[in-house]
Amino acid sequence: MAAPPHFTGSLGYPPSSPSPRSHLHCLSPCNRAIKVSMSQNQSYWTCVTQKIEDQLKQLIPVRPPLLVYEPMHHLVFTARRTMAPALCVATCELVGGQQPISPNQALVVASALHLVQAALFTHEQLPLTDRPIPSNPETLTHHHAFAAGVELLTGDGILSFVYELLGRSDDPAGGNSERLLRVIIEIARAMGSEGMVDGQYRKMLCSVLGSEELCDVGWVDHVCEKKEGRLYACGAACGAILGGGSEEEIEKLRNYGLYVGKIHGLMLYYHNNRTGGEEKGFTDLVERCTSLALKELEGFNQGMVQTLSSLVRASFWDKC
Amino acid sequence: MAAPPHFTGSLGYPPSSPSPRSHLHCLSPCNRAIKVSMSQNQSYWTCVTQKIEDQLKQLIPVRPPLLVYEPMHHLVFTARRTMAPALCVATCELVGGQQPISPNQALVVASALHLVQAALFTHEQLPLTDRPIPSNPETLTHHHAFAAGVELLTGDGILSFVYELLGRSDDPAGGNSERLLRVIIEIARAMGSEGMVDGQYRKMLCSVLGSEELCDVGWVDHVCEKKEGRLYACGAACGAILGGGSEEEIEKLRNYGLYVGKIHGLMLYYHNNRTGGEEKGFTDLVERCTSLALKELEGFNQGMVQTLSSLVRASFWDKC
Repeated sequence: MAAPPHFTGSLGYPPSSPSPRSHLHCLSPCNRAIKVSMSQNQSYWTCVTQKIEDQLKQLIPVRPPLLVYEPMHHLVFTARRTMAPALCVATCELVGGQQPISPNQALVVASALHLVQAALFTHEQLPLTDRPIPSNPETLTHHHAFAAGVELLTGDGILSFVYELLGRSDDPAGGNSERLLRVIIEIARAMGSEGMVDGQYRKMLCSVLGSEELCDVGWVDHVCEKKEGRLYACGAACGAILGGGSEEEIEKLRNYGLYVGKIHGLMLYYHNNRTGGEEKGFTDLVERCTSLALKELEGFNQGMVQTLSSLVRASFWDKC
Repeated sequence: MAAPPHFTGSLGYPPSSPSPRSHLHCLSPCNRAIKVSMSQNQSYWTCVTQKIEDQLKQLIPVRPPLLVYEPMHHLVFTARRTMAPALCVATCELVGGQQPISPNQALVVASALHLVQAALFTHEQLPLTDRPIPSNPETLTHHHAFAAGVELLTGDGILSFVYELLGRSDDPAGGNSERLLRVIIEIARAMGSEGMVDGQYRKMLCSVLGSEELCDVGWVDHVCEKKEGRLYACGAACGAILGGGSEEEIEKLRNYGLYVGKIHGLMLYYHNNRTGGEEKGFTDLVERCTSLALKELEGFNQGMVQTLSSLVRASFWDKC
């Protein structure tokens, strides 16, 4: 797919860019392995997403009873990836989460964010009797590997596992229980009726009613803010909470995540549904979000800011 | 409906029974109001369920945006009631949860248990394209007030609200965060792929395959253990955890809840699907569970034991 004009750069930072002074000790082995062939920013995100993928594989193995874990594994690993989990790890490190407990917890919370996304994505694709035949190519090509009832229940099973996982990641000796409870609230709110579920509802309304007036750029903006925006905002805020960020840092990073998520959501929508006449509207929206996003990063450690800001300068979303 | 022979008593305790020495200070106003006309046990459960109902009404009002809260309110209050939430309050009090923080938290957790049940019940009734026409009278008469897509998303919204609610109920000053995280794990596990979701899956398998061999008394036993059994076990264990019970007390009350839940599940199934030939099998199962349940209560405060044990002696389930 061809991205709008200013999104044609591959990763935003040429190899000659100054190296971000990352203090991500959890990533140093990866950095050593790949630093020769990739830019620092790309290697950072590649490394973080690989670590989250490894964590997910550990958490959701294919094991007996296969009736339960086979669909769960399949649906978790075929669900669309987003950068929200990686953003969680990055903001944790940005605000100083170097203490022994946080990086591991950030990886667990990052995995939980993908699991929430996977469960809601699974439910979004369910063939309900009153759902219209999808006109969206993304939905049309969705392959159902299991019966609808199994996918419905597996989505519920994944959601329950998310909160079991978060609760289990507490280490009473670390005195981190309150931060973890706050993360649980953040994830539940981001997913809930005023967050991602609301985004799915608005999206469904448009596909049911199909009115052009309803499904204009403003509507897409709203849907993307609720779906991808809230997910990314949650990821960024959770990382900052776990890393011990101040309230101001948490709110700035939450806002940054919201804009990044909106941009990625808008690009995805544009990819799947673009019509020539609306390109200007999308480009304007993306540019406005990019500008607002970068403003939120002012005042943070410059090395990590370069890494973080590559998410809005480049078309990472294209790989998700 | 006619219950099996030993379930014909209305509430198990005649008015002349010795009064259980309940220390449920949260219930005293109710007890004063109704003690003349009802037995102590009945008044206890009526009062607790009323308090949970009041709490739910506060938590899930009909308020803007109506698109979100109207279906949520409807589905929460039309979902089948169980005694699992009341059991949570009762076991909290039984193990000594008189300190200021626990009774309120027990009511919140009790409400969360009903919300989980309501969300899963809503998903269980969804009209999926590959779901067979139900032969179960309970399912046949289920009225869908909203479109399937709305009910699906509302179920997801309710589930996310459960964990937001639990997280929010933490009072850092009370030093209760670790107990609350444990409760979150308990609820997530009870709901998950090896708990209620597994029960729903097994139930669905039977309705799809319809084999008599598959859907025998042993199968019903398994389904009830996973659905109602795990829900009640969770309620009883959560109450004991919040009330500060010992590990031994928590496990005994969890087991008690499991048997009570199984009994209520079996009675419900018998009510909806009974066939004359299987009455003996059901009666034997219920008797075995009753005996095992009462054994778990040995060693606890005798007054409260009378109240708790009325759940297996009487047909409370008939009102749910």
